[in-house]
Amino acid sequence: MHPMQTLLEPSSIAVIGASETEGKTGYILMKNLVDNGYKGGIYPINPNAMEIFGYRTYRTVLDVPHEIDLAFLLIPGQLVNHVLVQCGEKNVKSAVIVSAGFAEVGEHGLKAQSELEDVIRKSGIRCIGPNTIGLVNKQKNLLASFVPFQNWKDGPVAIGAQSGIFAGALATELMEMKTQRFGVCKSLSFGNMIDLDETDFLEYAWRDPASKIIAFYLERIKRPRPFFSLANKIKKEKPIIILKSGRTEYGGKAALSHTGSMPIKDNLLDIAFRQYGIVRTYTLQEFLATLKAFAYQPLPQGNKVGVITFSGASGVMASDEIHQSGLKLARFTQKTLKKIRNILPEWQPIHNPADIWVALGIERNKAVYKESVQAVLEDENTDILLCILLALPNSDVPDIREVFEPIVEKHYGKPIFVVIIGGKIKERWTDELEGLNIPIYSETSVAVKAIRSMFAYYRIKAIEAPNPS
Amino acid sequence: MHPMQTLLEPSSIAVIGASETEGKTGYILMKNLVDNGYKGGIYPINPNAMEIFGYRTYRTVLDVPHEIDLAFLLIPGQLVNHVLVQCGEKNVKSAVIVSAGFAEVGEHGLKAQSELEDVIRKSGIRCIGPNTIGLVNKQKNLLASFVPFQNWKDGPVAIGAQSGIFAGALATELMEMKTQRFGVCKSLSFGNMIDLDETDFLEYAWRDPASKIIAFYLERIKRPRPFFSLANKIKKEKPIIILKSGRTEYGGKAALSHTGSMPIKDNLLDIAFRQYGIVRTYTLQEFLATLKAFAYQPLPQGNKVGVITFSGASGVMASDEIHQSGLKLARFTQKTLKKIRNILPEWQPIHNPADIWVALGIERNKAVYKESVQAVLEDENTDILLCILLALPNSDVPDIREVFEPIVEKHYGKPIFVVIIGGKIKERWTDELEGLNIPIYSETSVAVKAIRSMFAYYRIKAIEAPNPS
Repeated sequence: MHPMQTLLEPSSIAVIGASETEGKTGYILMKNLVDNGYKGGIYPINPNAMEIFGYRTYRTVLDVPHEIDLAFLLIPGQLVNHVLVQCGEKNVKSAVIVSAGFAEVGEHGLKAQSELEDVIRKSGIRCIGPNTIGLVNKQKNLLASFVPFQNWKDGPVAIGAQSGIFAGALATELMEMKTQRFGVCKSLSFGNMIDLDETDFLEYAWRDPASKIIAFYLERIKRPRPFFSLANKIKKEKPIIILKSGRTEYGGKAALSHTGSMPIKDNLLDIAFRQYGIVRTYTLQEFLATLKAFAYQPLPQGNKVGVITFSGASGVMASDEIHQSGLKLARFTQKTLKKIRNILPEWQPIHNPADIWVALGIERNKAVYKESVQAVLEDENTDILLCILLALPNSDVPDIREVFEPIVEKHYGKPIFVVIIGGKIKERWTDELEGLNIPIYSETSVAVKAIRSMFAYYRIKAIEAPNPS
Repeated sequence: MHPMQTLLEPSSIAVIGASETEGKTGYILMKNLVDNGYKGGIYPINPNAMEIFGYRTYRTVLDVPHEIDLAFLLIPGQLVNHVLVQCGEKNVKSAVIVSAGFAEVGEHGLKAQSELEDVIRKSGIRCIGPNTIGLVNKQKNLLASFVPFQNWKDGPVAIGAQSGIFAGALATELMEMKTQRFGVCKSLSFGNMIDLDETDFLEYAWRDPASKIIAFYLERIKRPRPFFSLANKIKKEKPIIILKSGRTEYGGKAALSHTGSMPIKDNLLDIAFRQYGIVRTYTLQEFLATLKAFAYQPLPQGNKVGVITFSGASGVMASDEIHQSGLKLARFTQKTLKKIRNILPEWQPIHNPADIWVALGIERNKAVYKESVQAVLEDENTDILLCILLALPNSDVPDIREVFEPIVEKHYGKPIFVVIIGGKIKERWTDELEGLNIPIYSETSVAVKAIRSMFAYYRIKAIEAPNPS
C-alpha cells in the first residue's frame, strides 16, 4: 500500500480539535468534510461537546469505537506529541498535523520538531505537516482543510505545495476567479515535511488515474535522489511541472527561515530539472498559465506557432516573445495564405502573424474569426495556434462560443491559446471560451511561456534524454 | 507654436466622413466629440446629409465659413490626397488621417504613401497617420477617435502609441477594467508617422503641465537623434517610459511589415535608452504595471524594499524577484523589529520579508495590517513597501480602505505596492485600495518589475549620466 493512500483515501477521519464555533479552524474543517459529501466515518474529538455537525464527539481518539485511518490535528503545537502517542496506541494510520510552531519558527521550533520526529517514528503513523493546511481528494469528495473552500472544481491537475497558507490562497484563486478555473483533483500541502514529502506525492499522483498533470510548488527538494529518479521514470507518462522558489541568494535565505530548508544551488537544480524531465516555471503566473494550458489543451507536436492577430502591434509583440522563447513562427502554406486572402481585402499582405483586423465588420465578425482560425489550424506547417483577440465594440460577436465550438469539436489535435486585450467584452469572452477549455490569457508573454512549457514537455516525451551518469 | 498644438488643442474640427449611421466610424467620432463636451466648433463634412448630431453639415471643407484648426479624415484611402489638397486651400492647420492602405500594406501602399507625403509637404498641414485611431486631450474635453471610449479617466499619463487599433484596445482596457484604471490626460496614435512623430509628441508632452509621465508604445524610433537628445533634456523633469517591440529577429520582421519600420539593432537601442534616461519595459503587463506605479506613487529614494507577507511562500518568491531585479531587501532597524514583535507571538522570528500570518485573527485583522504596514513605512532603512496580501476569508476585513487611508494620508513619502493573491475578496480589496491610489498587482514578479522601473528613474534623476560623446 502506498504510504499516502490512507492519507488521501481514508475510510474514516478523526478531527482532533473539531469545533462548533463558526470561524474556528475545527469548525471549517468539519464543514468542508460534511458539505462536500465525504462518505467515510467522521469522528470529531472534543472533550467539551456532545455533538458537532450532527456527529457524536469523543474525548480522545482512544474513545472512538471504530478504526481510524486519518487523524486531523487542529490543536496547539505543545499538545501534538501527546495526541500522536494516543493515535499510535489507537493504531491510526496517518495524520495531518496542522499545528504550527516547529522548524518554521527557528531554534526553539527546531527542538520541538526533532522531538515530534521521534514521536512520529515510534508511532509508525504516516504524516504530513506540521504547518500544513491539509489536503483534497475530489475522487473521495474529501476536502480536508481548514481553509473554507467553495465550489472546488475537479480536474486533471494534482498539486503538491510546500507552503500551507499560500496553497490555500492559490486554491481559492483557482476556485473563485473566472480566469483561473482549471480543475484540481488532488491537492496536498506538505508543510515542514517531517515525514511524507514531495517524492511520496509524486509516486501517489503517478499511480492515481485522475492525476494527469503533476504540479509542485516547492522551496526545497527534501530527497533529491529518489525524487529525480522517480521523475525520470514518470516523465513520459505524465507531465511534472514545478514552481521552485528560493532560487536566488535572498530567496534561499527566506526559504531557510520559512521552512528550515537548506537550498541546493539553483543552477544545479536547473540542470537536474532538465535532465530528469521536469518542466520548470519561474513565477506564479507562469506556473498557473502552464497548468491551465496542460489542463485544457493537447500537447503540440512541434514548435511552429501560427499567430492570428487583430492589430499589428500584437503581432509584433507576439513575434518577439515567440523568438525569445525559442519557438518558431510557422511558415504558412500557399493553401493557408489563399484561405486567409479570401477574407481580406486584396491589398492586405498576409504573413505570420496574420493581421486580420481589416476584415472585421460587425455583421461578418463571426465568419472572419472562424475562417481565419480554421485556416491556421488546418495549416500543415503549424503546430500551435496563438490567437490574440481585441475586445472592442467593433470586434465583438454576440456569442464567441458559437465560433470556437465547432472548431474545438473538429479535434485538429493542435493546442489553441487565446490572448484577449480590451475592456468589458473580455470578461464575457473569457467566460465563454474557457467553457470550451480554451485557455485565455491577458498577456501575450504569459501565453507564450505556457506554450514554451508545453513544447518543453513534448520534447521530453519525444526525445530520449541522455542517460545521466 | 508647437506643431502638435492645433492637433491636440484645436479651436475647431472638421469631421470629413461624418455619419448619421450608428456604428460607422464617422458616427462614433461625432458621438465621442459631442458626448465628451468638446467646446470648439464642430463641422461635419458629408455631402449627403443636412445635419449630423444637430450640427450643420457641409459638402467640403471649402464650404465651411469658419477657420478650421483640425481636419479628421475618415474616408477611403484613395480620396485622401484630393481632400488634403482642399484642406490646404482652406488653410486647415492640422489633420488626423485615419484612412489605411498605405505603408502598412506593402509595396502598393508604399507608393500611395509617398504620394501622400508629397501632398502633405506641399499643403503645409501637420498630420498624424495614416492608419491612426486619433487622439485624446482630456484638458480640452477632446476625445477625437473612432473607438467608442466610455468614461475616459483623466490622469497624469501621456501616451503616444504607434499602433492604432492596439492603442484603442489598450485604452479600452485602461478605462473599463478595474485593475487598470490609472488616468490618461493625452493619448495619440501616430500611425505610419508620415509627418508628426514620437519626437514631436515627446516635446509636446514635456511642455504640457497635465502630462507628468510620458509613455510610448513604439515599434521604431523614426528620428533617433532628436528623440534621444530631447529625452536627455527632459529626463530629470518627467519620467519617459517606453514599450519598444520588434526587439528580436521575428519581431523586427513583423514590425517591418506592420508599419514599414526599419529597425535599429535592439542592443544599440537598449544602450541609448539607458544613456539618455528612458525607462524601458519589455512586455505589455510590465508597461502598464510601471505606468500605474508612476501614476499613483511617489518615487522611491533608494532601492531597499521592506516586504510584509502573510505566507512564507510569498516572502520567498518576493525575495527571489527582488534579488533578480537588482533591488535590495531592507535590513529592518531594532525599533521596527520591536514594533512587529508586538503584534506577533513571542516564538515567531522576524525577518524581512516579515511573515505576519500568525498574527491574524478576524477581530484584530485591521490592527495587524495597520501596525505592520506602518512599522515598515517608518523604518529608516526602508525605501519601498511591498505588501503581499492573501485574500482569504480569515484574513478579511470589512473595509480595508480604513486600514490604509490614514497611512496614505501620513505621507511617508515612500511608495507602496500591494500584491493580492486569492479569491473574490481580492476584487473588493483591489477596488478599495486603488481608490486610495495604491497600485494593486496580481503577481509579485510584475509588481517588482514596476518597482525596478521606478528605482531606475530615481537613479536617472539622482545621478548625472555620463555625457555621451
